[in-house]
Amino acid sequence: MAEPRIGVVGATGAVGSVTLELLAERGLGQVRAFASSRSAGTTVPYGGSELVVEEATKGALGSGELDLCFFSVGTGPSSELVPAAVAGGAVCVDKSSAFRLTDGVPLVVPEVNGDRAPSHQGIVANPNCSTIQLVCALAPLHEAGGLTSVRVATYQSASGAGAERMEALRSQPPADGDIVMDWDFEGDESEEESKLRAETRKILELPDLSLSATCARVPVLVGHSQAVWVETEQPLSPDEAREILAAAPGVTMTEKPTPRQAAGGDQVLVGRIREDRAGEGLALWVVCDNLRKGAALNAIQIAELLLASQALAA
Amino acid sequence: MAEPRIGVVGATGAVGSVTLELLAERGLGQVRAFASSRSAGTTVPYGGSELVVEEATKGALGSGELDLCFFSVGTGPSSELVPAAVAGGAVCVDKSSAFRLTDGVPLVVPEVNGDRAPSHQGIVANPNCSTIQLVCALAPLHEAGGLTSVRVATYQSASGAGAERMEALRSQPPADGDIVMDWDFEGDESEEESKLRAETRKILELPDLSLSATCARVPVLVGHSQAVWVETEQPLSPDEAREILAAAPGVTMTEKPTPRQAAGGDQVLVGRIREDRAGEGLALWVVCDNLRKGAALNAIQIAELLLASQALAA
Repeated sequence: MAEPRIGVVGATGAVGSVTLELLAERGLGQVRAFASSRSAGTTVPYGGSELVVEEATKGALGSGELDLCFFSVGTGPSSELVPAAVAGGAVCVDKSSAFRLTDGVPLVVPEVNGDRAPSHQGIVANPNCSTIQLVCALAPLHEAGGLTSVRVATYQSASGAGAERMEALRSQPPADGDIVMDWDFEGDESEEESKLRAETRKILELPDLSLSATCARVPVLVGHSQAVWVETEQPLSPDEAREILAAAPGVTMTEKPTPRQAAGGDQVLVGRIREDRAGEGLALWVVCDNLRKGAALNAIQIAELLLASQALAA
Repeated sequence: MAEPRIGVVGATGAVGSVTLELLAERGLGQVRAFASSRSAGTTVPYGGSELVVEEATKGALGSGELDLCFFSVGTGPSSELVPAAVAGGAVCVDKSSAFRLTDGVPLVVPEVNGDRAPSHQGIVANPNCSTIQLVCALAPLHEAGGLTSVRVATYQSASGAGAERMEALRSQPPADGDIVMDWDFEGDESEEESKLRAETRKILELPDLSLSATCARVPVLVGHSQAVWVETEQPLSPDEAREILAAAPGVTMTEKPTPRQAAGGDQVLVGRIREDRAGEGLALWVVCDNLRKGAALNAIQIAELLLASQALAA
C-alpha cells in the first residue's frame, strides 16, 4: 500500500486532536477528520493547515474509501461505527472499551505485545490509558520474576475524561480542585478499576492475576500518575528492577516523575523503585502522558506495526 | 484552673489560624497569639475581633504567664521554643515532628489513644496530618482483627505545606497543577513516608507493623485523601469493616468522600471499603481536613482531654 487513506474519528476530542498532531508530525497517509454531526463542517488543525470535519456516519466510514481508522469516541458510537468501517475494508484501531475484551480482538501495547497486532480481524483495541502505562512497567518485571499480585492507586488527569473536562479545569478557580471518582460503578468497583484489571490480565496473558485498583481523578490537566505495589514469584531487588526497567522499551527511569514532566512526551516515566515495606515485593511510581502514550500515540504505534507487517487489510 | 492562659504559636500560619478559629468557637481560655519577629505587631482574626501578634521568644513563652501552648511552627523553632515554654510552666501541644518519637512524649490522637495524653512531661505531640486520619481508620480495624500490614498512597493537599503554598495554588493557572513529592528524602523514602510509618507504629503500639507509604502532593487546597490496603490476622469482611468503622469515634462512613466534602468538617471520612483483590485484606479510601482533624482540631481535642483530666500542669 503506497499511502494509506486514514480516518480520524472523534477528531475534535482530546485524544483525536493529539492523534491528528502525531499523524501530521509523521506525514503518515492521507488523513480525513470525522466527528459527530454537531462538529461536522468545522475545521481542525492538521500540521500547518486545517481539515474540514466530516460527519462520522456508517455510510461515510463504510464507503470503502478508508484503509485505516483511528476511533477515539465513546463506547456507544464505537460499537455502532467500527463494524461499519471494518465492513467497508478499513482496519480500525479503537480507543473505546467496546471491543477490548472481545475474543479475537487484539488488545495491544506495542512494547508489550505488539506481536498480537497483525492477527486482527479488522479491529485492534487500544487499551485504557491507565492500563497502557501500567503494563509498560509491569511486563518487564513479569518477564523477569513472574507477577503474582498488583496494587495500584491512580492519580488520573482531567484530560482522561475528555476535552470538556479539560476546559472545565482550565476555567475553574485553582482552589476549587477536588479529587473525584467520576466513573460509573458496578458493585464495589468503578468501571475504571475493573477495566484496569481485566485489560492488564488480557495483555499480560495472566487471566488470574490478582490486581486491586483504586482509581481517582485529580485536578491535573494532562498526565496520569500511579502508585504501584507488585509481588513476583521470584523476588526482585530494587536494583534488579531498576536495571530491568532501565532497559525496557518505552520506559524512562527518573527519580520522582511528575505529570508535567510526562506531558508532551512519549515515554512512560518510572521512579521511586524501592522495597515494599509491607510485603515481599516492590513499590514504584509510574507517570505518563495519557493523551499520547496513554491513547493517541499508542494507537499510532499500533498502526505503524500493522503497516510494517503488511497487516493493514483484515 | 478557672480559665487557662493559652498561647497559639505560629498564629499567622495555615494551622495556627484554624487553631484560633476553633479556640474562638469554643471560648476556651484567654488566648494570645505568637509568631516570628516578621509578623509581630500585625493582627490576626480571633472570633469577632483581633489579636495583636506577639513575638515568639523563649522569654515571652517561658515567662510563666501561659498554662497551655499550641505550637504549629517548624521543627527548628519548636525544638528551641517548646522547652522554654515547658520550663515556664506551660503544657505544650506541639504539631512539629521535633518530639513525636521522643520517649516519654505522648503522641496522641484522642479517639485512638487519648488515655496517653495525661502522662506527659510537659509536651504532648500532635501527629503528622496523614498519620492522624490513617490511625483513626486503622485503630478500630486493628482492635477487631489485629493489623499486620498497611499500604497507603496519599493525595495530600497544598495546605499541608503551609499558608504560602496555599497562596501559590490560589494564584497559579489551574492548568498548572502538578503532582509532586516535595519532601526531603532520606534513602529511598521521603520523610513524610517514614514519619507515617514511625508515628503509626507508636500510636497503635505496634513497633513492628509493616507499612509502605507513597506520599504525593496534589493541587487541592484543603483535605488529604488516602488509598489504603490493610491486612489483619483475623480476616475482616468488607461488611464487618463497615460496621466497625461506622461505630468508630471520629469516623463518618460515606460512599466516595472527596477533599471538598471533608474540608471544614471535623470527621475522618471513610469510604470504598471492599475486598483487596490482590490479597487477603481490605481496600479503603480515607479523606480528612488536614488543617482541622489533621492538625488544629486534634491539638484542641488533646488540650480538652488534658483540661478534663486536670493534667494541664506537668
